[in-house]
Amino acid sequence: MSQTRIRSGGRASRRALRSTPNVAMLPGLRNTLPWCEIMNGSQVERIDAASMDILENVGVVFRDDIALADWTAAGAKVVGETVYLDRGLVRDLISTIPSDFTYHARDPQKNVRLGGRHSIFVPMTGAPFLRDLEDVRRNPTLDDLAMFHKLSHMMPSLHSSAHHIVEPYDHPISHRHLRITYSSMKHSDKTFMGMTTSPKNAEDVMDMCAILFGEDFMEDHPVTTGNCNGNSPLVWDETMLGAMRAFSKRNQPVLCSPFVLGGANTPASVAASVAQLNAEALSALAYTQVIRRGAPAIYGHYLSTVSMKSGAPMAGTPEISMMNFMIGQMARYYNVPWRTSNTLGGAKTFDAQAGYESATTLSAVMHAGANYIWHSAGWNEAGMHCSVAKFVVDAEQCAMAYRMAEGLKWHDFEAALAAVPDVGPGGHYLGHPHTQENFQTAFFMPNLFDNNSIEQWQAEGSKEITERALTHAVNLLGTYEEPRLDEAVDDALHDYIARREREIPTADALNQDY
Amino acid sequence: MSQTRIRSGGRASRRALRSTPNVAMLPGLRNTLPWCEIMNGSQVERIDAASMDILENVGVVFRDDIALADWTAAGAKVVGETVYLDRGLVRDLISTIPSDFTYHARDPQKNVRLGGRHSIFVPMTGAPFLRDLEDVRRNPTLDDLAMFHKLSHMMPSLHSSAHHIVEPYDHPISHRHLRITYSSMKHSDKTFMGMTTSPKNAEDVMDMCAILFGEDFMEDHPVTTGNCNGNSPLVWDETMLGAMRAFSKRNQPVLCSPFVLGGANTPASVAASVAQLNAEALSALAYTQVIRRGAPAIYGHYLSTVSMKSGAPMAGTPEISMMNFMIGQMARYYNVPWRTSNTLGGAKTFDAQAGYESATTLSAVMHAGANYIWHSAGWNEAGMHCSVAKFVVDAEQCAMAYRMAEGLKWHDFEAALAAVPDVGPGGHYLGHPHTQENFQTAFFMPNLFDNNSIEQWQAEGSKEITERALTHAVNLLGTYEEPRLDEAVDDALHDYIARREREIPTADALNQDY
Repeated sequence: MSQTRIRSGGRASRRALRSTPNVAMLPGLRNTLPWCEIMNGSQVERIDAASMDILENVGVVFRDDIALADWTAAGAKVVGETVYLDRGLVRDLISTIPSDFTYHARDPQKNVRLGGRHSIFVPMTGAPFLRDLEDVRRNPTLDDLAMFHKLSHMMPSLHSSAHHIVEPYDHPISHRHLRITYSSMKHSDKTFMGMTTSPKNAEDVMDMCAILFGEDFMEDHPVTTGNCNGNSPLVWDETMLGAMRAFSKRNQPVLCSPFVLGGANTPASVAASVAQLNAEALSALAYTQVIRRGAPAIYGHYLSTVSMKSGAPMAGTPEISMMNFMIGQMARYYNVPWRTSNTLGGAKTFDAQAGYESATTLSAVMHAGANYIWHSAGWNEAGMHCSVAKFVVDAEQCAMAYRMAEGLKWHDFEAALAAVPDVGPGGHYLGHPHTQENFQTAFFMPNLFDNNSIEQWQAEGSKEITERALTHAVNLLGTYEEPRLDEAVDDALHDYIARREREIPTADALNQDY
Repeated sequence: MSQTRIRSGGRASRRALRSTPNVAMLPGLRNTLPWCEIMNGSQVERIDAASMDILENVGVVFRDDIALADWTAAGAKVVGETVYLDRGLVRDLISTIPSDFTYHARDPQKNVRLGGRHSIFVPMTGAPFLRDLEDVRRNPTLDDLAMFHKLSHMMPSLHSSAHHIVEPYDHPISHRHLRITYSSMKHSDKTFMGMTTSPKNAEDVMDMCAILFGEDFMEDHPVTTGNCNGNSPLVWDETMLGAMRAFSKRNQPVLCSPFVLGGANTPASVAASVAQLNAEALSALAYTQVIRRGAPAIYGHYLSTVSMKSGAPMAGTPEISMMNFMIGQMARYYNVPWRTSNTLGGAKTFDAQAGYESATTLSAVMHAGANYIWHSAGWNEAGMHCSVAKFVVDAEQCAMAYRMAEGLKWHDFEAALAAVPDVGPGGHYLGHPHTQENFQTAFFMPNLFDNNSIEQWQAEGSKEITERALTHAVNLLGTYEEPRLDEAVDDALHDYIARREREIPTADALNQDY
């Protein structure tokens, strides 16, 4: 009897839930899961020692005159482009990297903490293609990028709008970084990332951040992050090092990310791959402190293993999970925040392969305790496309992982237990008052998974998850409300972009590359 | 140069790999992953105390006269059908359950150990439908069941052929258990499960096991397992208890499995749901020891949370993962092996939903440290169908999880590191001798994931994973070789089945239910 009442009440409230999507951002995650540590203390020290040996004896190539001069001044041995880093120097330099910090958003309610047990989910970036609202694979435009920034703004689990989630091909390449940065800033008030496609582009991002947050504020507060990829094995190039300087000088955090394709640019061994990756990350982390002592920096990596069949990077393989567990241990050993890559898929469509790969990666990075959980939505085809359908499903998966990592709730344990004698053997809980009060919050109910009977599913059109997710994305975008941006700030950003677009030449070829 | 040589050498050996599928069983897994324990010691004790309170004060209904008499004789307080179990009695009884044991296969090379850090993967069972080799959803036959037993035999990660993976509708229901058991025994020499659909059916399974393994051997050696589901909350029925007696009396392990739909037959609270489930499992585990002190038994559960939208069980939700972590802790607290459910999907097709759900579950049960990892291949549509495509993909996923759980290999760390100075900054590892020697074993290469470029993938027919997996299954079945079964034993089994089929009546209605 009471069951009937709940059910009809439930139906009404479900209608309400459907028409008002909850777009409030989840606070930055405090991951309470025990870290999955697959090395003991002496194994961690063995990796550390191997990495230090590499830094001292093999050295790291910095293909950049300023960096070589900086290193010489810092007391490193420099021979040609190769920098030999003494372990004492490395340890001294990285000791001033903050172990955690607050990453500021333009809405201070959406500031997040990074480091230690504090983690954030950041959507994917850099896709040269998208699969759009009709699942068509094509080159993206600025409007497509804006759409992904809007979705990032609206998905509760995403803590950032990132930057070039997709590459907007309808704008000249030399001006793109300005429009991309503006789109991140304008369509969301969450944290965002800064372009590092050249030192000068990085300077433009810094200037735009100064307009948005104020020059003085930036001096003491991280307001964006820049990713700098290494060329494994053991090379950092001029573009990345120049961009790194632009960020670190302004006290903005850099992700120091060796780009590892296990077996191709590292040895064919999990432990040795991590030793090399660790040496590379340490060399860049140390350089951030040469640029500016105390600047925040993040131990990064992009990490895959390579298919013997095609040479292509793979996703969701056991060694990728293991390397994530190990890198987490190394970053904690050095007491620096660390970045990983999440929900990676190598599938060409949003099929079951993409699901397995993405969930396997998500789970591994949660148990590994990653702080900056990048590429958390949309990544498929080894990063060649960002899928709208996958974007919203991945984001919901992150919300589920968030729930798991938040930890067990004990506050109503006694109240819930009191229902057991009430209901008794053979009884049913749906009608019990405790159930009525707690059902909606006790168990996560994914929006994008279908758990109906096959008959019900068929009656609703036999829709697989891609179709349901695209409908969800369309509905969500229909309710998008742009977060208010101060008019004077907006004008100043526009003026800046207009001036820089007058100053920066565009090649005709680049105007036509859409 | 040397790279070219490796590549063409690689191509030839890849062809060889493709034409000779490796069907050798992986040894029983020793899971070296740190257990994901989300409760501290006092929280474990809090669950234990709550469960014991339930057993003492709410009691458990045993709907079975023999069990009630047994409990009275064992010193429990019995009122009507309700048994009130004192915690001292429960602790004393479960103390004699072996913490681990060897589960025997008819090929002794395929014996596996269960308990502690020792785990096995067992395919799904009980599906009333299959999605067949053409992905058509229909009722299964004995031939379909045989196909799944053959696939179980051939997939290296599966340690068992289970029993009624699918329900063979072309045979009278009252005779099915005989044919199912024979099919498990005949088509694979791995471990298998025994039917528990009635006490008498369970006796038939015991008799058939005695024919296969010998009556005396069975007395000291577990040769099959039987699953007994509870009716949560807090009820065990006559069918299950009778089957349990048939197994435990013969020293064969029973999975004591409360059937939990979180929020429907447990309180709407993760911790309280586990407290109730734990009480239920303990009551059945204790009863196995009333039946026979020292008989092996397994802490079981089927566990889901219920969708508020449809009342249907969900898969891959965060609370299911958390409950697995907790149940692992409780089973270890009581020092008994435990069973979980793996790679569960609620999707209607093998789409990305199924992938996410399955991988999330697989990861959770690996980190939880489950011993008897059931439903490890094929489960979709909340168990309503077993999908051939999903079966082979799940099994490969289990092989990948196996690799992750085996732990890090350090044996060639120094040799692999020696390649770093050889290759040097900016170099390439593919041509290095260490890479040539170790590439195939260093990194897992999934057969059923496609990591090619989109152009290559399109050239090969734009096949999603379902199509590729079905092709793989067809190829695999084409190379199936039946493991030799002693002719006299085979004859004896046939005689037994023939006699029992004469003895057991079949209702006409049941003959026609195909």
